[in-house]
Amino acid sequence: MKINLQEDVLKDHNLAAKFNRGLFNDHNTLVINLMSSPGAGKTTLLEETIKAMTNEFRIAVIEGDLATDRDAERLRALGIKTVQINTVGGCHLDARMIAKTIPEFDLDHVDILFIENIGNLVCPSGYDLGQNFKVVVLSVPEGNDKIPKYPVMFRRTDLTIINKTDLLPFVSFDLDEAKTDLEAINPNAELKALSAKTGEGMEEWINWIKDAYHQCIKH
Amino acid sequence: MKINLQEDVLKDHNLAAKFNRGLFNDHNTLVINLMSSPGAGKTTLLEETIKAMTNEFRIAVIEGDLATDRDAERLRALGIKTVQINTVGGCHLDARMIAKTIPEFDLDHVDILFIENIGNLVCPSGYDLGQNFKVVVLSVPEGNDKIPKYPVMFRRTDLTIINKTDLLPFVSFDLDEAKTDLEAINPNAELKALSAKTGEGMEEWINWIKDAYHQCIKH
Repeated sequence: MKINLQEDVLKDHNLAAKFNRGLFNDHNTLVINLMSSPGAGKTTLLEETIKAMTNEFRIAVIEGDLATDRDAERLRALGIKTVQINTVGGCHLDARMIAKTIPEFDLDHVDILFIENIGNLVCPSGYDLGQNFKVVVLSVPEGNDKIPKYPVMFRRTDLTIINKTDLLPFVSFDLDEAKTDLEAINPNAELKALSAKTGEGMEEWINWIKDAYHQCIKH
Repeated sequence: MKINLQEDVLKDHNLAAKFNRGLFNDHNTLVINLMSSPGAGKTTLLEETIKAMTNEFRIAVIEGDLATDRDAERLRALGIKTVQINTVGGCHLDARMIAKTIPEFDLDHVDILFIENIGNLVCPSGYDLGQNFKVVVLSVPEGNDKIPKYPVMFRRTDLTIINKTDLLPFVSFDLDEAKTDLEAINPNAELKALSAKTGEGMEEWINWIKDAYHQCIKH
C-alpha cells in the first residue's frame, strides 16, 4: 500500500481550515491573514491599523513567530487581546495551530481578527488558515523584483500592500513595474502603497478593511 | 515497520553534502553559502564583491530562486559563470540540487564559488550544501530584532553581514543591540556592517573572504 503522505497531511490542514472558517463565520469575525518577508513591517502596520480602528471595531490578533513574544507585547501594549504562537523553527502557521488558539478568544466580542504569519515570502502562501482574506506586505527596500521572483505568494493573495513608501527616495523601487508584474501574475489582486510610519496611504487600507468587514459579515 | 522519513531524507542530504564538500576540496574551491530574507541585497553584494575580487580570483556563482533567472543575468553581465537553480516553490536549496549543477562548472578553474540561496530567513538554515562557510545577510530596514526572532538562522552561520548601512539615518536599527543579540545566540559568529551600494565596509568583507580562502585552500 502506498500512502500519499503530503495529500493526507494537507487534507487534515484543509479540514482544520474549514473548521476555523465555520467558527469565524458563526461569530461574525472577519479574519485577515497577513504575510510578508521578515522586516517588511507587518507589526508596525498592525499597530497603526489598530490605533485607527479600535474605536469602531473590536480587534484581536494571533501573532506567529519562530521565537520570542516581542511582537505580541507590542500589540498588547495597545490593549489588544493577542495570542502568541511560537513555531520553534517552523516556517509558517497552519490551520491546526490557529484552531488551538481559538478557545483563548471570546469570538462573540471580536469583529476583526488579524493573523500575523511568520516572516517568510514562500512557505505561508500554501496554507489556508480559514481566513477571509490573504494580504501580503512587500516593503520598498526589498525591491519590486520580488513579485515575479516569488510568484506563488503574490498569485494567492487578495491584496498586496507596498509598505515603507517613505523610503522611496533612498532606494530603487519601481511602483509602476510592481503593478504591471502583479497584474500579470494575479489579475484579481489589488495593490495599495502606503507608509505605516508616516501614515501616507493608511486611510485607503483602513477603508479596504472596513469594506471587507461590511461585505463579509452578516448582521 | 515504522520508517522515520525525516531522518532518511536528511541522511541522503548529508551524503550529498559530503559528496559536494569532497569535490570542492579536491578542486581547491572555496564555497560560501549566502542566505538572507528576500530583498536584503545578496545579489548587489555579490555584484560588488565580484567587481572587487575578479582580478585576483576566478569566481563562479550558483543562483537559487523560486522563479526567473533575473539574478543570474545580473551576474552573467559581469562575465561570471552562473548556474541558475529554480526551485519552483521550494523554500531552500539542498545539497542534491547543488550536486546536479557541479558538472556545469570547471572546478579546476574556480577559486571561489558563491551559492546565493533562496530569500528566506528560516528554511535554508537547516541544509548543509557542502559549503566551507555560511554567511547570512540582514539588511538595516528589516530591523535588528530579526536576530532574536529568527535564532536558528543566526545560530548556524559563521558570519552575519548587516547590509544597507546607508539607510541607518532613515530607519530604526540598533547596531549595538544587534551585536549583543548575536553574541548571546552564537558566541563564535562574526558581524560586519557594510553598504554594498555605497561601498562602506566592503573592504573588511573582501578581506574576510581572502582570509577564508587562504585558510581553507591548500596550495
